[in-house]
Amino acid sequence: MTEQNPQTEFQLMDEDQLSVELIEAQYALKDSRGQSNAKSLVILVSGIELAGKGEAVKQLREWVDPRYLHVKADAAHLFDFKTSFWQPYARFIPPEGQIMILFGNWYSDLLSSATHVSKPFDDSLFDEYVHRFRAFEQDLKNNQVDVVKIWFDLSWKTLQKRLNEMEPSEVRWHKMNGLDWRNKKQYDTLQKLRQRFTDDWIIIDGEDEQLRDQQFAQHVLQAFKDCPEHPKTVEQSWQQAPIPEALLNPDNAALDEGDYKAELKKLSRKVADALRFDDRNVVIVFEGMDAAGKGGAIKRIVKKLDPREYEIYTIGAPEKYELRRPYLWRFWTKLQPEEKICIFDRSWYGRVLVERIEGFASDLEWQRAYAEINRFEQDLTEHQTVIIKFWLAISKDEQEQRFKAREQTAHKRFKITEEDWRNRNRWDDYLNAAADMFAHTSTEDAPWHIIATNDKNSARIEVLKTILKQLKAD
Amino acid sequence: MTEQNPQTEFQLMDEDQLSVELIEAQYALKDSRGQSNAKSLVILVSGIELAGKGEAVKQLREWVDPRYLHVKADAAHLFDFKTSFWQPYARFIPPEGQIMILFGNWYSDLLSSATHVSKPFDDSLFDEYVHRFRAFEQDLKNNQVDVVKIWFDLSWKTLQKRLNEMEPSEVRWHKMNGLDWRNKKQYDTLQKLRQRFTDDWIIIDGEDEQLRDQQFAQHVLQAFKDCPEHPKTVEQSWQQAPIPEALLNPDNAALDEGDYKAELKKLSRKVADALRFDDRNVVIVFEGMDAAGKGGAIKRIVKKLDPREYEIYTIGAPEKYELRRPYLWRFWTKLQPEEKICIFDRSWYGRVLVERIEGFASDLEWQRAYAEINRFEQDLTEHQTVIIKFWLAISKDEQEQRFKAREQTAHKRFKITEEDWRNRNRWDDYLNAAADMFAHTSTEDAPWHIIATNDKNSARIEVLKTILKQLKAD
Repeated sequence: MTEQNPQTEFQLMDEDQLSVELIEAQYALKDSRGQSNAKSLVILVSGIELAGKGEAVKQLREWVDPRYLHVKADAAHLFDFKTSFWQPYARFIPPEGQIMILFGNWYSDLLSSATHVSKPFDDSLFDEYVHRFRAFEQDLKNNQVDVVKIWFDLSWKTLQKRLNEMEPSEVRWHKMNGLDWRNKKQYDTLQKLRQRFTDDWIIIDGEDEQLRDQQFAQHVLQAFKDCPEHPKTVEQSWQQAPIPEALLNPDNAALDEGDYKAELKKLSRKVADALRFDDRNVVIVFEGMDAAGKGGAIKRIVKKLDPREYEIYTIGAPEKYELRRPYLWRFWTKLQPEEKICIFDRSWYGRVLVERIEGFASDLEWQRAYAEINRFEQDLTEHQTVIIKFWLAISKDEQEQRFKAREQTAHKRFKITEEDWRNRNRWDDYLNAAADMFAHTSTEDAPWHIIATNDKNSARIEVLKTILKQLKAD
Repeated sequence: MTEQNPQTEFQLMDEDQLSVELIEAQYALKDSRGQSNAKSLVILVSGIELAGKGEAVKQLREWVDPRYLHVKADAAHLFDFKTSFWQPYARFIPPEGQIMILFGNWYSDLLSSATHVSKPFDDSLFDEYVHRFRAFEQDLKNNQVDVVKIWFDLSWKTLQKRLNEMEPSEVRWHKMNGLDWRNKKQYDTLQKLRQRFTDDWIIIDGEDEQLRDQQFAQHVLQAFKDCPEHPKTVEQSWQQAPIPEALLNPDNAALDEGDYKAELKKLSRKVADALRFDDRNVVIVFEGMDAAGKGGAIKRIVKKLDPREYEIYTIGAPEKYELRRPYLWRFWTKLQPEEKICIFDRSWYGRVLVERIEGFASDLEWQRAYAEINRFEQDLTEHQTVIIKFWLAISKDEQEQRFKAREQTAHKRFKITEEDWRNRNRWDDYLNAAADMFAHTSTEDAPWHIIATNDKNSARIEVLKTILKQLKAD
């Protein structure tokens, strides 16, 4: 939706009628859960102080069924070098069928940051943020989370009038939350800044209270009903990337057991120190065929670390509550600034591997995922996070031998299921999917490392060396 | 389990065998999900630095299936006047079938607090904390969350030897996490303090690494298998409390519309200020029959507040992921120190109202719930939280009239369902349950207020006045 001039054509509705329609649309949204047209809705609310966004939301709560409308209001998160704009909000992204109003959001954080930090943002940095926000919102929309943005505006004159009429306790409360609204220059700066992003927002004038509440509610009603037609299929045929030689021939020179032990001891100590004392967060991702040795490699990385220093996530099929949100959501919520070292035994790349191959993601979805994943990783790498990605490459014969050995070892039997044998039948599909993954997601800041693992020991050494190298290089 | 002398009778197991048994027991635990013997397991791990708790957990991770064993390690949460000991950990309480190892936990917080704060704890305060912890753990156990506590001990001599042999980078890391372990006096103090709570802990000596890892793993194995027989039925017959007159006769004097409006204007402003500027958090709970006017009363409380200042929780039937945890869990996670004003439209009292009446909780469970709820509320009220509890009392006739009016009002129709009519048939059961609830949970710090609501307007005024009164009185 683009900026309109709503006053000219806007029609007040009968309040009871509006309420009935809101409730019905809300229930339809809720009942869509689990169906192909399911969606959730995020409403970003920002605006000038005293324009009445709080009042409008309160009125809306009275017209709808409040059990299914959530409101979240955080104090501003000023941008810092360690936090990506979506990290404070990831956990509030609602599941299918639900509605979340975000008072505090990435735009209000941007405005606060741009006006509060000692060194003001220049326009190009500001615009770069807006550009990122929009890409993120588009990713949300493509993954069934609609985003509606509503700006409550107020003229300088009316703002001053309302400030004059305010109760003393309200003055104190509003002061806590914002800028100095008596300062015309600050008001003008803010208006100029917000105009750099509000061209795809709905603008509501806070002058007239009744109009304001009705406009807000009617726009929300429209958003409840909106079910934009997303394309369902891809247009062009897919260009398969060539399979890297390293995947086809993963033989690596065997390492003498004595050399291995000495090397391992030295390297695992170095890796522990490097991870421990790096100022940045570190994310290490392992992908590869079953039995390629992901678990064993991880064990050697953490050998000299204390379990309190890292998290290992073993990623399997998503839970139901995860399926009701964008597939990246379960990683958004795990990758937060306070997590120093995170190791993933399988990862978000499942989208373009198993989900592609098993058809859990449509062609359109997995093809779109490369760019989504790149944006996700870029947001992290630009905020003091190193991402080190490994593909452990094994030959089909070697896998078979390891499967059989597992079946014969009592305490490893749980590691091998019929599904693993089934996956072997799709060996070439996985090679092709991996090839495409390397072609599309091996970026400068988060490159893939293909490690030949037919010899386990030398593979483990290689992984440790690669970690040290990437940590130093970055 | 009480402190044993495990060395004398302890048997090392074959490692593969141990691993097989651990995995099998872990899978049995996991597969119990949804069944009557389902449980989850919390393992609290604490101990002397360098006793090897990290190593033992790491070894355990290699013997079990790591996908179903979670490890959480937080830096110490020093006790403050606003935070109850369980608040930082509530979200880590695992659902049925899962296992969570907590490195940082309420005991390590207590030790840190007792040794770090400027004014040391006296013994009776320390013991009071331990007493609270145990009551909380018993509540967890009664609600299918087993708690196992394991202390890794180490002699002064060995500790000093290990400190001498430590790599420099480890010294730096360990320094970050703890006390000065070179200080004999501090070591002795800590040992003396921990002996105030470890009599129901498993003590593992960290001297011998192999013994240590095996003892830990074998105790965990035992904990996986343990399914303590909880009594399922109550012994005595239940003593029904008399129904308060106010519930039987909820007629209140009608208020003149003009007086009401003037009074409401004045009071809603006062209530907003009182809530806004109270240094404490405020929790307001509404219970009462359907159509008693909970929503309307809440609306008047927040009339002069901005939605960013409060949260309203409308509590319905629990979701599946909530059912897999203790019934208080969904309130533990909502009631956190950063939430300034929380209003509950229905609440944790559902346990002793609808769950009692509909048989979702057994007699034993709802009868036990009064004490659980009192402890829960006490933990909050002792940490700068005011709890104001309302029962809105309505007569059966008045309810019928309101139901019928709702059915005839399009935008209120969603508020009335067949279930509401069905609940009417259990009117007397609800009165009895409410009477018992008042008798057992109206405490000095969190009393119940019964408000007659046959006249809505005067009920709303009464609610506002009561809030002001309790805020001032506390």
